[in-house]
Amino acid sequence: MAASKEGFLEAKHEGVALLARERAAASFNVRAMTHLLDGGEEATAEKERVAAMVEEHAVLQASDRYFVGRQESLARAMQKFKEIVRLTLAAGLDREDGVRMYYYVNEPMPTSLHHGMFIPTIQSQGTDEQRAEWLPLAAMFSIIGAYAQTELGHGSNVRGLETTATFDVETDEFVLNSPTLTSMKWWPGGLGVAATHCVTHARLMIDGTDYGVHTFIVQVRDLEDHTPLPGIVIGDIGPKFGWNTADNGYLAFDSVRIPRNQLLARYATVARDGTYTKPPHEKIGYGTMIRIRSMIVAGASDALARACTIAIRYSAVRRQGTTRGRDGGEMVVLDYTMQQHRLLILLATAYAFHFTGEYMMELYRRLQADLEDNDLSVLPEVHATSAGLKSMTTTVTADGIEEARRACGGHGFSQFSGLPYLYTWYVPAVTYEGDNVVLALQTARYLIKSCRQAADGKPLSAGVAYLSARPGATCAAANPADMGRLDVLAATLAARAGEAVRAVTGRLDALLASGVDYDEAWNHLMVELCAASRAHCEYSVVRNFAAAIATVECPDLAGILTALCRLYAASRIEADLGSFLAQGYLSKGQSQWVKDIVHATLAVIRPDAVALVDAFNFPDFLLNSALGRKDGDVYVGLVEAARSAPVNEHLRPIIDKSLFSNLHIPSRL
Amino acid sequence: MAASKEGFLEAKHEGVALLARERAAASFNVRAMTHLLDGGEEATAEKERVAAMVEEHAVLQASDRYFVGRQESLARAMQKFKEIVRLTLAAGLDREDGVRMYYYVNEPMPTSLHHGMFIPTIQSQGTDEQRAEWLPLAAMFSIIGAYAQTELGHGSNVRGLETTATFDVETDEFVLNSPTLTSMKWWPGGLGVAATHCVTHARLMIDGTDYGVHTFIVQVRDLEDHTPLPGIVIGDIGPKFGWNTADNGYLAFDSVRIPRNQLLARYATVARDGTYTKPPHEKIGYGTMIRIRSMIVAGASDALARACTIAIRYSAVRRQGTTRGRDGGEMVVLDYTMQQHRLLILLATAYAFHFTGEYMMELYRRLQADLEDNDLSVLPEVHATSAGLKSMTTTVTADGIEEARRACGGHGFSQFSGLPYLYTWYVPAVTYEGDNVVLALQTARYLIKSCRQAADGKPLSAGVAYLSARPGATCAAANPADMGRLDVLAATLAARAGEAVRAVTGRLDALLASGVDYDEAWNHLMVELCAASRAHCEYSVVRNFAAAIATVECPDLAGILTALCRLYAASRIEADLGSFLAQGYLSKGQSQWVKDIVHATLAVIRPDAVALVDAFNFPDFLLNSALGRKDGDVYVGLVEAARSAPVNEHLRPIIDKSLFSNLHIPSRL
Ligand SMILES: Cc1cc2nc3c(=O)[nH]c(=O)nc-3n(C[C@H](O)[C@H](O)[C@H](O)COP(=O)(O)OP(=O)(O)OC[C@H]3O[C@@H](n4cnc5c(N)ncnc54)[C@H](O)[C@@H]3O)c2cc1C
Ligand SMILES: Cc1cc2nc3c(=O)[nH]c(=O)nc-3n(C[C@H](O)[C@H](O)[C@H](O)COP(=O)(O)OP(=O)(O)OC[C@H]3O[C@@H](n4cnc5c(N)ncnc54)[C@H](O)[C@@H]3O)c2cc1C
Repeated sequence: MAASKEGFLEAKHEGVALLARERAAASFNVRAMTHLLDGGEEATAEKERVAAMVEEHAVLQASDRYFVGRQESLARAMQKFKEIVRLTLAAGLDREDGVRMYYYVNEPMPTSLHHGMFIPTIQSQGTDEQRAEWLPLAAMFSIIGAYAQTELGHGSNVRGLETTATFDVETDEFVLNSPTLTSMKWWPGGLGVAATHCVTHARLMIDGTDYGVHTFIVQVRDLEDHTPLPGIVIGDIGPKFGWNTADNGYLAFDSVRIPRNQLLARYATVARDGTYTKPPHEKIGYGTMIRIRSMIVAGASDALARACTIAIRYSAVRRQGTTRGRDGGEMVVLDYTMQQHRLLILLATAYAFHFTGEYMMELYRRLQADLEDNDLSVLPEVHATSAGLKSMTTTVTADGIEEARRACGGHGFSQFSGLPYLYTWYVPAVTYEGDNVVLALQTARYLIKSCRQAADGKPLSAGVAYLSARPGATCAAANPADMGRLDVLAATLAARAGEAVRAVTGRLDALLASGVDYDEAWNHLMVELCAASRAHCEYSVVRNFAAAIATVECPDLAGILTALCRLYAASRIEADLGSFLAQGYLSKGQSQWVKDIVHATLAVIRPDAVALVDAFNFPDFLLNSALGRKDGDVYVGLVEAARSAPVNEHLRPIIDKSLFSNLHIPSRL
Repeated sequence: MAASKEGFLEAKHEGVALLARERAAASFNVRAMTHLLDGGEEATAEKERVAAMVEEHAVLQASDRYFVGRQESLARAMQKFKEIVRLTLAAGLDREDGVRMYYYVNEPMPTSLHHGMFIPTIQSQGTDEQRAEWLPLAAMFSIIGAYAQTELGHGSNVRGLETTATFDVETDEFVLNSPTLTSMKWWPGGLGVAATHCVTHARLMIDGTDYGVHTFIVQVRDLEDHTPLPGIVIGDIGPKFGWNTADNGYLAFDSVRIPRNQLLARYATVARDGTYTKPPHEKIGYGTMIRIRSMIVAGASDALARACTIAIRYSAVRRQGTTRGRDGGEMVVLDYTMQQHRLLILLATAYAFHFTGEYMMELYRRLQADLEDNDLSVLPEVHATSAGLKSMTTTVTADGIEEARRACGGHGFSQFSGLPYLYTWYVPAVTYEGDNVVLALQTARYLIKSCRQAADGKPLSAGVAYLSARPGATCAAANPADMGRLDVLAATLAARAGEAVRAVTGRLDALLASGVDYDEAWNHLMVELCAASRAHCEYSVVRNFAAAIATVECPDLAGILTALCRLYAASRIEADLGSFLAQGYLSKGQSQWVKDIVHATLAVIRPDAVALVDAFNFPDFLLNSALGRKDGDVYVGLVEAARSAPVNEHLRPIIDKSLFSNLHIPSRL
């Protein structure tokens, strides 16, 4: 429709005024909050500098993301990758800036795993010679690497991988084979299109002995013409729910030979004569894992914050219903308490996860130092908690994004809301880097161990100190104000976690004592074990959040953060009141106070809702959302986006006249 | 990869044997269950006949659904539509068969609303002359209609629609106008591409008076060349999370004139001189609404059943973990109790919703008869319950599909699992036909009214009779076996619903008494109101399910259905134990029994899990899922699907050699 034709449609741009009014009402300085979240003014400036660079370059934009098909998406992602490489080289950017640039481009790419896993694996598992040989090639993109662990038949259970690497002492080579269909590598990003090389996991076989899964470097495609090398079957696994800009692929080996020095041999080695030396017990690698998981937890906060930004801005502008709002017009939907219950709890969660991500990053730094001093004391707790936190935060975030999308009504279903993309981009986080159920069970295993230590009177690390509390305690809060104190809420969550862990430990011990075998007993208790892990993690998040708030100097910021922490904690209790009542920690009256606290805190946060999402400081191009635009002009955004949809230029051929001409009727009835 | 190249990958087809073993262990006759679900042998035969017809016709297939882009999707959907029309005419199929054919083609189409809303609206709101004029044209597809109610600015609040239809007494016409950007029609299916006509909602203006929203027939495109008529701005709203085979569109009017007889005038009329006659209070239309909602509830069951079929078959074949399974191999994941807790509760839910859908359909039939006899006694209850049930069942189903998808691990993220499509196809059901929050609140309104009636000692209809129970009652179950009886579980759910409704009614009355205005009080209580609605609906589902089981004669079928009903009911209690404990209906001991019942019932249902999904009788082509295939050969399915992905034929051009040639390194390192 041409501009002239549209002239009769008066655009009110009302959202602009509505968001301005929201912003004027904020109780705190948004810029100060942004600095607090980023870790200082300078950090904000660095982020904004990179964001501006990305915004400047047309090829890095995502504005037509919602229109292009699979092949084109892959091709564009490769273009983006090249542009990032070009820009980082041209501007002499450092690694951190490179990471920031990927962040703002915001698309899984055929090359994502090159930086994400290929290089780090060689770094951590390669010998010095292997590092010297491969890392420069990788750094200059002379080779592009993938991380090929998962197979068609095995993901979570790495010990079940079937690919073999058999040592041939004659030729001093390993011979890689995929003996079964299920042994095909399946899922690794980069294999579909981009990878020339990969690190791959295979069972090391020497002289008929299976030494278990080890890691190898293999070239898979020719560097000149990019065709698969002999014996390599490789391709793309096809379209996915999301991540269609990435080329998750398959790979099978038919007697592919690699020299002995392509076993990553920092810890395990095979000598010229086939003598195998197994890795020393090795925990230094745990540091890296904790770093990745703290990035995932921080990433959960970031993703949830984007969803909140979109849904809260839109809800502050969307008028709907027969109820009159404060300005006499139709009520904006953010003023409905149900909408607040859906969205502001998510907002509090995004803030809560942020501070837990920070805390874990700090811990990682301390841990690295400890590990170098051979002090492993906090490692088990941090390691176990990080598994559970990865599990809990990614599940909550994925669910939260989708909840935010639904809370936008019909328009949330449009790609132009940005929310469908955000969801399908984010949701594999519940699966990769450890399936969330499997990880929760890992945490539970540690909690049970700690519980037994507590029973034996051994000291516990701070994060699980609650396990040595006397069972049967009750909440001391004497009134609603007491109940709403962060320390009281945290203690309440700790009490539930303690009870959950004690109860499941008791049941496990009873089953074992009755002769049930361990695996069976474990399986029998899985639902409770996962619940215990979650209880522990929710407590940890509140503990970290409250600790972070204690260090905030500005009273305005501390004030609203306290409200957010209160809401997060109280809403976690509200969502599982049965546990608190069944264990007798809360009385019925106290449980009602918790509900009242949630309700009252929603009202406290509501006036700051838009300012709180503004503080996340997402540029419009990153959100790529007509509903979440910073200026609030959502309807103009939707109409402009629809106008740009290619389908509107290609409608006519779809309609076949024969359909409408079988009755001879005048053209205007 | 050519067949020869793949030869070294040995396919074990193990899933085939595993599913055969599962099927051999079933406790009931699957075919008998299918007949029970379908409503008799004949009904099953009819479904299968149509399914076979759809399967036979290449153009109706969805096998390449996951590869085609938006424009092509629309074009194919139109071809499918034409083929359905051709087949129904050629085979002389009746309306029911036509509906079944759409069901098996399983794609929203540019023409879906033609049958779904355009024709029914003319039928229910048109005068006899209007029906005679328009319905034959629509039946022969001489015109294609859309249902254009929602605007950019208004969906839920229909009273807020802005489009105007101003009566021009001079010319005896209505003049349609879209005064603002937000008044554009936005979302109606069919507008984007297909529609030549629509029924549209606009404010009727006569002589400066606004008579509120009425329904009109308008032609929007030329019947010969399909271009928009003068004054019509029309197009597609762009890509969506799902439904990209449909053409949800926009539409604006710039002084478009239609004759007076295009106001649908069965109930409201405008005379030649502009005299307006308002509709008599009219409840006959409620029957239709209940019919649509019972179809949505039945549809929720159907969609959830598909997800369960895929995830349960796959989980019975997927081996993963270090635990040994019963056959000594790696455990199949369906044997993990956590996986059972996730999937078998969903399976029980799919069965539960089925019988509530049936119940509502039956009620609709009785209601139609009652209404013709002017007996409106059960109408309010049925109407209110149907709103809440639409809300509850669609939310649970959407969440359940996604849970099932995640429970398939990485492969659930592949489009070839069929689950991403199923989710995005289903999920708008939480929004259309009434946003789920808005509907839950409607139910709550009725419940409060009934609660007040109960307090006044007035009689209540059967579905809400629990509201006249004495408050403060406790559960009489004396042991776990007692607790697991369906009547006891139903009574427990009724007790929670009663307490929730009484409590929120009391709080509402207190707020009103303290001078708070109604809208504000209502808003204040929204979270509790929605919870009360949900509690009522969960009780209703169990009540209907238990009633249906009571009529099942075959003991095997009744046995497993009883287990499913028990699991559904107990899991609903388990998920919200806090309410039952806080109100004091369950003791702590009883609450533990409920958990134990859930656990024990999972074990009862597990051996029948595959048989129970087989009974849904979905043909493979409908599920369109490598993981859900009936034969269990999931890995072969995934590999074949990936092999057929067009991206694997178009990889080369994506890689730009320049990337890999900036260092001069030999082609094999
Ligand atoms: C987008 C995406 C990108 C990926 N990128 C890569 C990559 O670059 N490289 C790579 O190697 N891999 C990659 N993967 C694969 C990923 O690592 C695996 O999918 C993940 O580890 C989960 O394993 P799985 O798929 O085998 O699921 P499974 O382990 O088979 O899980 C299936 C179900 O079984 C349950 N289950 C499994 N084990 C247990 C147990 N012990 N106890 C109880 N329940 C259990 C799970 O909870 C789940 O519900 C990617 C996956 C995705 C989705
Ligand atoms: C796939 C699809 C197909 C569609 N097809 C058609 C079609 O063919 N024809 C047609 O006319 N329309 C169609 N629609 C539009 C659909 O009917 C509307 O989207 C739906 O009615 C919801 O209204 P809304 O989008 O205005 O959401 P809103 O009502 O604006 O909802 C936004 C948020 O506000 C909340 N909210 C709104 N009102 C209240 C209240 N009173 N109290 C508390 N909270 C409230 C909601 O819960 C939601 O969270 C379609 C939509 C979709 C997604």
